Amino acid sequence: MRHCCPAGLRLAELDDCARGGPEQAAPLCVLSGIPLDAEAPAMKIRSFAFVVAFAGIIARAAAADPLPSWNDAAPRQAVLDFVARVTTENGPDFLPPEQRIAVFDNDGTLWAEQPAYVQLAFAVDRIRALAPQHPEWADQQPFQAILAGDLKTALASGEKGIAEILAATHAGMTTEEFERIVADWIAAARHPQTGRLYTDMVYQPMLELLAHLRANGFRTYIVSGGGTEFMRPWTERIYGIPPEQVVGSRGKLKFELRDGAPVLLKLPEVDHIDDGPGKPVGIQQMIGRRPVLACGNSDGDLQMLEWTTAGEGPRFGLVVHHTDAEREFAYDRASSVGRLDKALDAAGEHGWTVIDMRRDWNRVYPTAAD
Amino acid sequence: MRHCCPAGLRLAELDDCARGGPEQAAPLCVLSGIPLDAEAPAMKIRSFAFVVAFAGIIARAAAADPLPSWNDAAPRQAVLDFVARVTTENGPDFLPPEQRIAVFDNDGTLWAEQPAYVQLAFAVDRIRALAPQHPEWADQQPFQAILAGDLKTALASGEKGIAEILAATHAGMTTEEFERIVADWIAAARHPQTGRLYTDMVYQPMLELLAHLRANGFRTYIVSGGGTEFMRPWTERIYGIPPEQVVGSRGKLKFELRDGAPVLLKLPEVDHIDDGPGKPVGIQQMIGRRPVLACGNSDGDLQMLEWTTAGEGPRFGLVVHHTDAEREFAYDRASSVGRLDKALDAAGEHGWTVIDMRRDWNRVYPTAAD
Repeated sequence: MRHCCPAGLRLAELDDCARGGPEQAAPLCVLSGIPLDAEAPAMKIRSFAFVVAFAGIIARAAAADPLPSWNDAAPRQAVLDFVARVTTENGPDFLPPEQRIAVFDNDGTLWAEQPAYVQLAFAVDRIRALAPQHPEWADQQPFQAILAGDLKTALASGEKGIAEILAATHAGMTTEEFERIVADWIAAARHPQTGRLYTDMVYQPMLELLAHLRANGFRTYIVSGGGTEFMRPWTERIYGIPPEQVVGSRGKLKFELRDGAPVLLKLPEVDHIDDGPGKPVGIQQMIGRRPVLACGNSDGDLQMLEWTTAGEGPRFGLVVHHTDAEREFAYDRASSVGRLDKALDAAGEHGWTVIDMRRDWNRVYPTAAD
Repeated sequence: MRHCCPAGLRLAELDDCARGGPEQAAPLCVLSGIPLDAEAPAMKIRSFAFVVAFAGIIARAAAADPLPSWNDAAPRQAVLDFVARVTTENGPDFLPPEQRIAVFDNDGTLWAEQPAYVQLAFAVDRIRALAPQHPEWADQQPFQAILAGDLKTALASGEKGIAEILAATHAGMTTEEFERIVADWIAAARHPQTGRLYTDMVYQPMLELLAHLRANGFRTYIVSGGGTEFMRPWTERIYGIPPEQVVGSRGKLKFELRDGAPVLLKLPEVDHIDDGPGKPVGIQQMIGRRPVLACGNSDGDLQMLEWTTAGEGPRFGLVVHHTDAEREFAYDRASSVGRLDKALDAAGEHGWTVIDMRRDWNRVYPTAAD
């Protein structure tokens, strides 16, 4: 094919043509129908420049990489292929938009979960903030240990201790009061090692994947063991995921009138634990349809991945493997925040795609160079 | 203003112009800029006809009555005014689309609930269908009474009896098995008095209201005391409300593997009763935002109406009052399916709009003349 970029155009106008090279630029000549061999009059040049520029915009839009932080490796290609397959009308795997439901774990899947769950850091900060009103905590576990900075002893108090921490920090106020407390905290709280805002430690490749899915008619949900009410105040701003698409663990709520005004009071009782086998239950309660794409990073996501990928038709399972000690954290089948043991084995059995963070992502966080 | 409909156009082309009369048609002359006093050449006539026809389409779209089954009375106007106010950009009551959440009770609000809740008819039919597999029911209450057609005695067995009915008919199968059972039943089940399909006894004015709200960027939710899993199989087809926007009562679910395939088993235990004070709780669990419009028809909707209308900014409460013995049913502050007592008083106190079905709706059901 002959190169059709004519001389005499401004550099900017030529830019797309030049970068595209003869193979890409040639069809534009066909489209514009301009006889390039003739001496082109000014109007034709302008017309041609317009066509080139316009086609360049279209080409850029079509060619824009939706996953620039993903290396050109198997996971990236698998994701792109799946989305292309289920959105190809009249194709064998086409899914109508209402069935395009994608579920993502949060801790360790959308943001960092090491050295401890962010919600635990929130609880610890709340206990410190509330301590002046609770002098009795000075010699009462697990509060004493938390105030002394000894999280290990605090958590060793087991389920009873954790229930007391949750009751003290996540109950006894209205849903709207709690929302404000969380919103204020998350706006300022920083990771103990990196000093970054927690919300700056979300994974840029996952933000791109969420956006790519939504651009293709998917609804994206969080399905997390974390508290629903802890996530909702910030997930829309950070991930573009609205409150009604956040499925998490819940405490019981009680409706009551306070001075005639209706409120929802957060009670110190567990209503739903959205982890492990609780995840498909939470999905059914809140969504009522089986997702077609699930993404997790631990054995707590095993049943969600099983439930999602066992459905009929096209399905996609995705597992994040934390292998990057330099940019993030490296932890494998057992770690301080849980296990990735059965889920990793199941990934092999079921053909789920495993993301090796170190190998497959060229960037981890959205802000600052990694 | 002078009438600008020119002679010589075909009747169909003139139709809109003629019906609009001089006041409506005159601005079209200004828009088209055609000198009507002059003898118009064919091209200009064609051009004018096009403008008239096009403007006619726009006028029809703008003027199309979104609530044709609502009489021109206060409730209709109040609904239209509210929707107009919250969708007027830069207006004082403008709400961004994500805040446009409308919640509707189901039984007695979107479809008929007399002489008994449809879900109870479903349970009775299921007990009849399952009876051959349960010979012990022949002398065991509440089953004996149900099989003898004596619903009054069956329900007199109180909470324990109702729990047994629910356990026998709503549990012990997977969510997908239950979905098929409900879908098959609702496709054929008919009202004992009218002989119509239950799904033909939805209220046409409410279908119009739901559609009008959605056309104006609202998301419409059902918030019902009925079972979530009982409603989801048909609400999208009948109301245009998808499964994830159905908030109802729930039984507990259990994830398990059956021959290696994951299923969700319906357990005979109550998880959430979405009635009365349970409605704001269900709303918070599943939506996580306070609605701006709520519509109900009984005291079971009181707290949902209170919670919705107590929020800041524009709010709208709507109460259906069943006053039409001829076309539907007439029942007031106390009836076999519940009470409309506190909610009716509260409507007066809070300025909620009360729909008098007999007076305010010119049509009740979508099929057949009422």
